[in-house]
Amino acid sequence: MENALNLDTVVLAENQKDIIILDQTLLPNVCKYLTLNNAEDIWEAIYSLRVRGAPAIGVTGGYAYYVLADQLTTTDMAEFVTECTKIMEYINSSRPTAVNLSWALNRMHSVLLAEKDRLSVEEMKVRLRDEANAIREEDIQISRNIGAYGFELLEQIGKGVGIMTHCNAGTLATAKYGTALAPMYIALEHGWDPKKDLHVYCDETRPLLQGARLSAYEMQAAGIDTYVQCDNMASYTMKSGKIGIIFVGCDRVAANGDFANKIGTSGVAIIAKHYGIPFYVCAPSSTIDMTMESGDEIHIEQRKPEEVTEMWYKERMAPEGVGVVNPAFDVTDHSLVTGIITEKGIAYAPFKESFEKMGILPVEKYVDKKKDQ
Amino acid sequence: MENALNLDTVVLAENQKDIIILDQTLLPNVCKYLTLNNAEDIWEAIYSLRVRGAPAIGVTGGYAYYVLADQLTTTDMAEFVTECTKIMEYINSSRPTAVNLSWALNRMHSVLLAEKDRLSVEEMKVRLRDEANAIREEDIQISRNIGAYGFELLEQIGKGVGIMTHCNAGTLATAKYGTALAPMYIALEHGWDPKKDLHVYCDETRPLLQGARLSAYEMQAAGIDTYVQCDNMASYTMKSGKIGIIFVGCDRVAANGDFANKIGTSGVAIIAKHYGIPFYVCAPSSTIDMTMESGDEIHIEQRKPEEVTEMWYKERMAPEGVGVVNPAFDVTDHSLVTGIITEKGIAYAPFKESFEKMGILPVEKYVDKKKDQ
Repeated sequence: MENALNLDTVVLAENQKDIIILDQTLLPNVCKYLTLNNAEDIWEAIYSLRVRGAPAIGVTGGYAYYVLADQLTTTDMAEFVTECTKIMEYINSSRPTAVNLSWALNRMHSVLLAEKDRLSVEEMKVRLRDEANAIREEDIQISRNIGAYGFELLEQIGKGVGIMTHCNAGTLATAKYGTALAPMYIALEHGWDPKKDLHVYCDETRPLLQGARLSAYEMQAAGIDTYVQCDNMASYTMKSGKIGIIFVGCDRVAANGDFANKIGTSGVAIIAKHYGIPFYVCAPSSTIDMTMESGDEIHIEQRKPEEVTEMWYKERMAPEGVGVVNPAFDVTDHSLVTGIITEKGIAYAPFKESFEKMGILPVEKYVDKKKDQ
Repeated sequence: MENALNLDTVVLAENQKDIIILDQTLLPNVCKYLTLNNAEDIWEAIYSLRVRGAPAIGVTGGYAYYVLADQLTTTDMAEFVTECTKIMEYINSSRPTAVNLSWALNRMHSVLLAEKDRLSVEEMKVRLRDEANAIREEDIQISRNIGAYGFELLEQIGKGVGIMTHCNAGTLATAKYGTALAPMYIALEHGWDPKKDLHVYCDETRPLLQGARLSAYEMQAAGIDTYVQCDNMASYTMKSGKIGIIFVGCDRVAANGDFANKIGTSGVAIIAKHYGIPFYVCAPSSTIDMTMESGDEIHIEQRKPEEVTEMWYKERMAPEGVGVVNPAFDVTDHSLVTGIITEKGIAYAPFKESFEKMGILPVEKYVDKKKDQ
């Protein structure tokens, strides 16, 4: 098995025209890269979770903006701006809950608006490419920092620690290292023994099994002692005393520390609190939305019922016509969170003040305004 | 779709020689009955969950004892007793956590021991058949009573109530009515509108999906407004305010009210407590083991890893060689339980005293002694 840290999740092709993504819907059995260069394919890849994980979606959003803008034939800047606005809005509609997507698109668009009077369309295309590449490079540094802060927590617990995680917030979810799995990669860089010093328990994460397919894949690829469990086994494993800490990623954090993450996260947090196990959210500051007071404002997308009912043995595993609950995310209350690990440090309750001390401030995101209707 | 109340879960064939069971591993797509008359097939049917649910396993255990004893050719009672003891021990080894199995086998064996000096082998075979049939008939009455007590709780909440359940403790798990689903059948008998007055949310219940395949099947067959959700969505649904009460079944209850049930039940109970939702265990008194002080004494069987890793698309859904957690059950602490509904009434904390007031007393079970090693 290839070392997951050698896997490229999202890159710009050498021709500077295509986005290359690892199709994560096929893991762990098939490792296949997709070459994308039209808007519909990119939209579908994000919508269908071929690329997933908040930071990786952000990197994809930046490249999507650049690649599609680069294809525009106009030399008129006003027309270019109009078309880029449409690109931004179209790509943004593929995952309405993913704040990183709107964040990256907005960052690209801000560059466009700030420099449109100074640059030609041709120059602007180069400028946008540089910005998209910068988003990727910064993401790698952010993940490294989150990993380093998380590793300090692992050191406090000591070698041999059991770690539980939900969904995949690993290197496959970012440009490199990941968020929730980054502390383990940093531990390996510090010489921890992957078989003895780290024991990682991955919730399989129904309905799409990102934990079983992706987190277990990359943790095992890194040589770490890795276990898969059904989501409903989290309570059993926590009660067994094997779990010293829980790391999860997130898609969006409100100012008060409420956060949205993959469906099931709030249940893990409630159970962890019951057993007294520290529960940490790994959150690049780009996922922290200081304009949102609480998690009540977070829109939860409902996904198609067939994800729940029809993927088993390629037969229905629930009766025809039955109702289906299939929210993509849930919101975890800040009262359940021990700390929120960002690239700027670890925030503790009260989270809003803690975020502000780190310099995480409200940012006006005009893309945001129409997204959560 | 056939009305589930017309489905026979476990019956003795008209020839009085075979056990006929509905193969529940094939639902909801295929409704197939199996005819069983040798020890290995019966053992396999119980082990592989073709028949499952504590009471249905008990009924099967009674018929298994009779059918296999009936095949013995000896006319010597001492030899008959020796062979029946082997039958009992062999069948009991198929599901070590299922107290109903050992309870039913023990009941059959007690009849044998009590009457061996009075009856001939031929007469004893008839006596054992009558006892096995009585176990089934009593099970139906027990389920009806549990359903009636549970229905009183539904009436207190009022029509339109949302009910959550985990795994399947329905008519398919018993001879009729079920335990956790019995209150809904009784509600229908009282004229409640299945579409308007009852809304049932079924956890799919990984790894074997008894909730999606069986509970959703029989609730929908009864015409009830029924929803399936992944196990990790329970917190989301409870938070939504749609759930007024939770009913679960159980495999074994300790004297203090701790109980073992399908893996994931303890997580549901912890989350329910967090949201303040009443959580009731539906338990025939035969599942209450007053000789067991607490749930710490309950043995949890680990099942094969492939149930978790290899049933998706008939491909591996987790990497080769990864560790797997796969406990069949978990133990829920009595502090999380609102009440335990038995056929004799509803027990409340302190449970031991409540059980004793109902006349549920320690029973010496010699089969038990070796089971939980």
